Amino acid sequence: MTTPYQQPQPLTTSRDNLRPVRTLNLLSYREIQHLMSANVEVRKLFTLCALAVLNSGNEADDVSSLIESYPDFEIEVKPQSRGPIMDVRNAPASAFVDGNMIRGIQEHLFSVLRDVVYVNHALTGVYDLDSRRGVTEAVFDILRNANIVRPNLKPDLVVCWGGHSIGRNEYDFTKEVGYQLGLRGLNIGTGCGPGAMKGPMKGAAIGHAKQQLALRRYIGITEPGIIAAEAPNAIVNELVILPDIEKRLEAFVRLAHCIVVFPGGAGTAEELLYILSILMHEHNAGHPYGLILASPESSKDYFEDIDAFVRETLGDEAAQYYEIITGDPVAVAQRAKAHVDEQRRHRLALGASYGFNWELYIPSELQAPFEPTHENMASLRLDPTVPSQELASNLRKAFSGIVAGNVKAQGVAQIRAHGPFQINGDAEIMQRMESLLASFVAQKRMKIDYSNYTPCWEIVASK
Amino acid sequence: MTTPYQQPQPLTTSRDNLRPVRTLNLLSYREIQHLMSANVEVRKLFTLCALAVLNSGNEADDVSSLIESYPDFEIEVKPQSRGPIMDVRNAPASAFVDGNMIRGIQEHLFSVLRDVVYVNHALTGVYDLDSRRGVTEAVFDILRNANIVRPNLKPDLVVCWGGHSIGRNEYDFTKEVGYQLGLRGLNIGTGCGPGAMKGPMKGAAIGHAKQQLALRRYIGITEPGIIAAEAPNAIVNELVILPDIEKRLEAFVRLAHCIVVFPGGAGTAEELLYILSILMHEHNAGHPYGLILASPESSKDYFEDIDAFVRETLGDEAAQYYEIITGDPVAVAQRAKAHVDEQRRHRLALGASYGFNWELYIPSELQAPFEPTHENMASLRLDPTVPSQELASNLRKAFSGIVAGNVKAQGVAQIRAHGPFQINGDAEIMQRMESLLASFVAQKRMKIDYSNYTPCWEIVASK
Amino acid sequence: MTTPYQQPQPLTTSRDNLRPVRTLNLLSYREIQHLMSANVEVRKLFTLCALAVLNSGNEADDVSSLIESYPDFEIEVKPQSRGPIMDVRNAPASAFVDGNMIRGIQEHLFSVLRDVVYVNHALTGVYDLDSRRGVTEAVFDILRNANIVRPNLKPDLVVCWGGHSIGRNEYDFTKEVGYQLGLRGLNIGTGCGPGAMKGPMKGAAIGHAKQQLALRRYIGITEPGIIAAEAPNAIVNELVILPDIEKRLEAFVRLAHCIVVFPGGAGTAEELLYILSILMHEHNAGHPYGLILASPESSKDYFEDIDAFVRETLGDEAAQYYEIITGDPVAVAQRAKAHVDEQRRHRLALGASYGFNWELYIPSELQAPFEPTHENMASLRLDPTVPSQELASNLRKAFSGIVAGNVKAQGVAQIRAHGPFQINGDAEIMQRMESLLASFVAQKRMKIDYSNYTPCWEIVASK
Amino acid sequence: MTTPYQQPQPLTTSRDNLRPVRTLNLLSYREIQHLMSANVEVRKLFTLCALAVLNSGNEADDVSSLIESYPDFEIEVKPQSRGPIMDVRNAPASAFVDGNMIRGIQEHLFSVLRDVVYVNHALTGVYDLDSRRGVTEAVFDILRNANIVRPNLKPDLVVCWGGHSIGRNEYDFTKEVGYQLGLRGLNIGTGCGPGAMKGPMKGAAIGHAKQQLALRRYIGITEPGIIAAEAPNAIVNELVILPDIEKRLEAFVRLAHCIVVFPGGAGTAEELLYILSILMHEHNAGHPYGLILASPESSKDYFEDIDAFVRETLGDEAAQYYEIITGDPVAVAQRAKAHVDEQRRHRLALGASYGFNWELYIPSELQAPFEPTHENMASLRLDPTVPSQELASNLRKAFSGIVAGNVKAQGVAQIRAHGPFQINGDAEIMQRMESLLASFVAQKRMKIDYSNYTPCWEIVASK
Repeated sequence: MTTPYQQPQPLTTSRDNLRPVRTLNLLSYREIQHLMSANVEVRKLFTLCALAVLNSGNEADDVSSLIESYPDFEIEVKPQSRGPIMDVRNAPASAFVDGNMIRGIQEHLFSVLRDVVYVNHALTGVYDLDSRRGVTEAVFDILRNANIVRPNLKPDLVVCWGGHSIGRNEYDFTKEVGYQLGLRGLNIGTGCGPGAMKGPMKGAAIGHAKQQLALRRYIGITEPGIIAAEAPNAIVNELVILPDIEKRLEAFVRLAHCIVVFPGGAGTAEELLYILSILMHEHNAGHPYGLILASPESSKDYFEDIDAFVRETLGDEAAQYYEIITGDPVAVAQRAKAHVDEQRRHRLALGASYGFNWELYIPSELQAPFEPTHENMASLRLDPTVPSQELASNLRKAFSGIVAGNVKAQGVAQIRAHGPFQINGDAEIMQRMESLLASFVAQKRMKIDYSNYTPCWEIVASK
Repeated sequence: MTTPYQQPQPLTTSRDNLRPVRTLNLLSYREIQHLMSANVEVRKLFTLCALAVLNSGNEADDVSSLIESYPDFEIEVKPQSRGPIMDVRNAPASAFVDGNMIRGIQEHLFSVLRDVVYVNHALTGVYDLDSRRGVTEAVFDILRNANIVRPNLKPDLVVCWGGHSIGRNEYDFTKEVGYQLGLRGLNIGTGCGPGAMKGPMKGAAIGHAKQQLALRRYIGITEPGIIAAEAPNAIVNELVILPDIEKRLEAFVRLAHCIVVFPGGAGTAEELLYILSILMHEHNAGHPYGLILASPESSKDYFEDIDAFVRETLGDEAAQYYEIITGDPVAVAQRAKAHVDEQRRHRLALGASYGFNWELYIPSELQAPFEPTHENMASLRLDPTVPSQELASNLRKAFSGIVAGNVKAQGVAQIRAHGPFQINGDAEIMQRMESLLASFVAQKRMKIDYSNYTPCWEIVASK
Repeated sequence: MTTPYQQPQPLTTSRDNLRPVRTLNLLSYREIQHLMSANVEVRKLFTLCALAVLNSGNEADDVSSLIESYPDFEIEVKPQSRGPIMDVRNAPASAFVDGNMIRGIQEHLFSVLRDVVYVNHALTGVYDLDSRRGVTEAVFDILRNANIVRPNLKPDLVVCWGGHSIGRNEYDFTKEVGYQLGLRGLNIGTGCGPGAMKGPMKGAAIGHAKQQLALRRYIGITEPGIIAAEAPNAIVNELVILPDIEKRLEAFVRLAHCIVVFPGGAGTAEELLYILSILMHEHNAGHPYGLILASPESSKDYFEDIDAFVRETLGDEAAQYYEIITGDPVAVAQRAKAHVDEQRRHRLALGASYGFNWELYIPSELQAPFEPTHENMASLRLDPTVPSQELASNLRKAFSGIVAGNVKAQGVAQIRAHGPFQINGDAEIMQRMESLLASFVAQKRMKIDYSNYTPCWEIVASK
Repeated sequence: MTTPYQQPQPLTTSRDNLRPVRTLNLLSYREIQHLMSANVEVRKLFTLCALAVLNSGNEADDVSSLIESYPDFEIEVKPQSRGPIMDVRNAPASAFVDGNMIRGIQEHLFSVLRDVVYVNHALTGVYDLDSRRGVTEAVFDILRNANIVRPNLKPDLVVCWGGHSIGRNEYDFTKEVGYQLGLRGLNIGTGCGPGAMKGPMKGAAIGHAKQQLALRRYIGITEPGIIAAEAPNAIVNELVILPDIEKRLEAFVRLAHCIVVFPGGAGTAEELLYILSILMHEHNAGHPYGLILASPESSKDYFEDIDAFVRETLGDEAAQYYEIITGDPVAVAQRAKAHVDEQRRHRLALGASYGFNWELYIPSELQAPFEPTHENMASLRLDPTVPSQELASNLRKAFSGIVAGNVKAQGVAQIRAHGPFQINGDAEIMQRMESLLASFVAQKRMKIDYSNYTPCWEIVASK
């Protein structure tokens, strides 16, 4: 992400003491004790996330380079019965104006404290994270504690997915869709980084301003593994950090009143397979759920390829859960509005919560973290005898592993040590998967070194 | 309490379904399950408290007669993911206007649900109620959950204590003090029944209106044992129900930025000895705490007797913790304002919370419920060899037992079965206690049948 | 009016400089010049009204005694481009708390400045006060400038009329009606003094508090001639001072969404005849207008007498414009609510203003000040040949003259100089009028020296 | 101005009825009559301005082409006692979303109604527009009526001037300055078109969002002659239309707490000479007034040329009233903040209004419209014997005439008819003026056909 507003300022500011303005200023002694007794692991995570947030608006794709840039950065939480004080030293100067930390960054910093340190402890021992219900409770409590789920709001949240490094054309399209959504009074939730996660917010901000709306929500939903790479953009005014990828995905689908997917890479495919696997589950039969795949005319191939892949692997009936709209931001917004309205009617009739979709059934296999080891990747069942809902879930895991093997620290290390993942499966499915991934590579949608790329996977047809 | 506004209306209204407007409309499934799985005991308590609240404004001093008056009253909580719904049947008609429940009563009803049912379960297993810290945490969490403790408010809360059946003269005086407090922008917390618990609120409401203040707080702090007898008056706009007497007392002293004590009976003496026992504790040395004993000219004997009793039993140094103001409501309000200002300065300097006095040390013996059995009463150490802070605490228990023996169901039963409590102690202390109690009887300050009264206590001098 | 809160304070406070908090802090130089160039007459009027407002809450029925009590009282307006500053000296101490003027009184003071000085000049030369439309424009502009007429409010204003010196029974009844109106979300406008002008506000304040309403309006509508005698009570939170009696009456009937009349004296009869004369006018045929005559059971004679008088003089069809409700505050409030709802529907259908009843036709003869000279009184046409709408208007003038002759400075002087007014008219009408006045005297409803009273009128039957 | 969000939509929407949401919904009959009785001239002006506002966001530099594009456009005001209704037909479709007019455009439309039609009439006959004071009163009343001048706001308004067709570099610089101003809590007022009038608002919007400010003001100050060419951009949330150029200039300088001038053309030179002529006036000696000339590094020549021209024609002491900052947006914002703070201190000390600079003396010659006829242009006294404050004023008129001769309908017509304006003056002054104008032409800062341009002026040295 670039901003035109960067000044040649000193790199860091020496020091700032901050008292939170909202959520955390009313902790009990016990809660402050929890904060203070956080172990080294948690403190390290907290420091990293805090630095990511303080660096917001500067270019930084890479966690390690970020830490190297600010080797003296320190952040300390000091308990007081009036609420904890944060002592920040040697932070990026861009977070400050004339010596005072920018209010929005200050808020993000306290969101990090709240979610990384506090939630970490508050949740310990309370939830049965081995049960479906327990995981959902944890996700709900984190979102409620972050004031993301609120009482008395009408459904209006459109979650936008898509790549964080997309072309100008696609970025402008996401902005335009966001603008049309904003004009229709809809709010935006995204993964909170650049690209398709920023465009819709930026567009919506203009739409909201033109409509002079009172409530303007730009919700960033992230997790510690990617906050450094995809730091909350300047527009995010509500930030929540879920503990891991799966809880973040669950947060997306339970918060959304409609999902719009923009073009992306393997990660976007993973997200789409995740929600499809849910919607195809028999327990969710009859539950309305708006899912729109939207791209500019120039990128129509992307969703055509995806659509073909879905139909060929999961069957045509899998395609009923989404609609594809190409090159027409107004139509996307009008359909999204219609879906949101339908959610309102549906939930009202059920007595269901507007703010959190308790009714959606998410199978345990989608809640449990998938670890992309060679063994796990090899044992994925990818053949037509597997029921298609389950096959969708397995395909999602395959894509998840590929994303990890390409860009995540742990995955890359595994590939280096043991060579490409071996993915087994039905010959036809395998071939389709291979050609979809090839098209991503051809369209430069994967975050890899294209000049010198060896795929991190090998497809081994099972027969 | 009487209201001039009662109409000859039908006794009950048939039915009403209510959805909470505030706190409770964002519960998780787990929390709703807790609500629904409450045992018979809790449900009974809930029904009783709900009925008390719905009957607010009608004369009813007596729990049993209340239940007899509304034998068909039912209240049921139905879970929904949008939040629980209350189904109320055969409730007192006075709670309704043209078929709709009065908003204030509705709010009180949901305070009851929140504090009696929800808190009951939410706290189970979370706190170590055997530790000083654990008890204080529980009190804090209940008050925070009830939105009584809030962030970002300046100190302004005057807690008023005093009898619930006081004379017209004294009642008018409490109103006048409340008016002067209100004119000075101070808010009021009381035990939430009639008499000295209503007068200051009523007066303050007029003072607040004249000053056109935005934030007008009339906080009622009660517990299940007395909510039926002392139902929240119509002015209370924030209601919290603590689990027992000791936690309610702790709530009072930790919330207050100044305490004003008006004349009352043995109960008021108990409260005064409770706070004195705290302030005299060495751990609280140097902590400022405003404590004003205020009465109209016509009742000046009351605090003169109390003052004499304190000085003679606990020593003159015990009298340094309070000041007595007679017949001058303006002076009371000016002193209260000065105390509140001092609290603000003190807490600001400490970095201490404005909303909850964590710094005050409350010894465990004052947190543990005192059960007024014959054995416990007989074994109270009431002699000059006991350190005076401890003696204050023991005297408080003696008064607590007498209140129970006079008016509380369990205490009265014990007296009937085993005769009066035997209180042992140093002859001089015993004599002073006896004469103080005699003066309460003479001034008709005890809730007893004066025409036919046998004291529930016998003082047995130890030497 | 008495308040239980009066302290033995010094009589006056030495000095206070006040800057207005609302309306007046954005005047142009021209407007400030107008303020400063007010002539002696206007300044005298302003000083008197200011003193009345500052004395609010103290007993003072009498303008002259008020001025005598505060001979050194001074109030000066100093222009600044930030807005005028008021310099107040030797004002009643009861208007201050610890040296600061009570906010509500401060607001009233600026209402006086706004309406007496500013309006006085702003209106000069703008309106054609000889035309019906011009007078109504002036009334509208004064009310709009005082923020009494506001956009975007739903109809909810019940105007209450009635005596300012009524019995305890009647006062309690007005409070009870106010309470029931308040419970139903209705706001109150009155003449802003004691008695039936305070009771409904006091009751409504409790009803509003119980319903936790956000908008609570207690509108006092007065004029310079009576503000000293009927100073705004402590509950009034919106105050407007119209230039004279007739404009004040017009303000009442154009603001009201329903009028409730309580018992009073000749003044109340005058008001009733005023509104009847309007409603009976052919131009108002078909316009709904709620008019309720309400009294406690113990005062049922009052409206029975009035009703009989109306039917006998103006005919039974005149009685169709009001309904009489006795002893049932709930019924009064329910009917008032129904009338208000009807107004809303009616005005919505017409595209008519919710805040100001432009559609009501008020004949010029009711807008023009009636001067109660012997000549004017003698020449009133009071016989059955006069059309009944006009007869109502003439009877209203007769009662107006009697009120003046009894209590207003100028009227009393005339009676002293020339003896009782001679009222001519049809024998039967005259007899009915005489007996109605006699019943007022018998019920002590006139503000006269009963022990030594000679009527200020003589009825001279015309045939 | 271009927007990336334009859709291929139908050109116009058929019809919409609108009721104003704010200011105008509480008019008296008289005021509505005024609205309705507006003459043809005023109605034509109103229709044109309304169309300009409805077309906001579309490219349209040219009034006549705008009207040609929407030949069927109609707008009609219908009076109702609830407030006027606007009936809009065949308006640009871009003003609507799914059939509903965009709220911001709706507000602008009612600003037009308010200022063009209502003010037009309300002011007729009230002000003495021949007196300095009278003109200022009129400007104040229009701004107050538009809620631009408000009570109780702290000084925070930075007025930005500069060209509407500037280069990308310069536009980005204005955005960056706006961003830095916004980060410091400053609000923005401009002439409300594109270029330097939009950039600062757009930047400030991001700064305000990052600081999460509650009050975000983007004030557009325009006049009927240019609203079509410079329609309010989408960010403007407060719009006011002054009657003519001189009143608009007066509004700018009396509202501003600091002025920042960006590069522009002859118009910007005119504005700068206008404010210099004021600040140099002896009556304004000692009054602080912040005036910053700011440009990116790449445009530093512009203000260097201007500065040289000022020093050479008006003397070095004229340069003391401004400071030039090049290439440093942070410094611009910090200086602007310092000026604003100084204004606050200065006005507080004076008791002066925060919202409107009454104290600034504006000579009559700057208030009176200057008509750029050949005669007026030729008779301008431009020689060193004229006092420099007056010379500044005369030079301002010369530039004003040149702007008119280049782009304004009337001026262009004059040039066609009579050839270039003949400007007389001292040889040296004339030469400097000529070279400044030549540099504007060289930098393409004038809105002319550069390929085929004959200057509209000829400089005729007087000696």
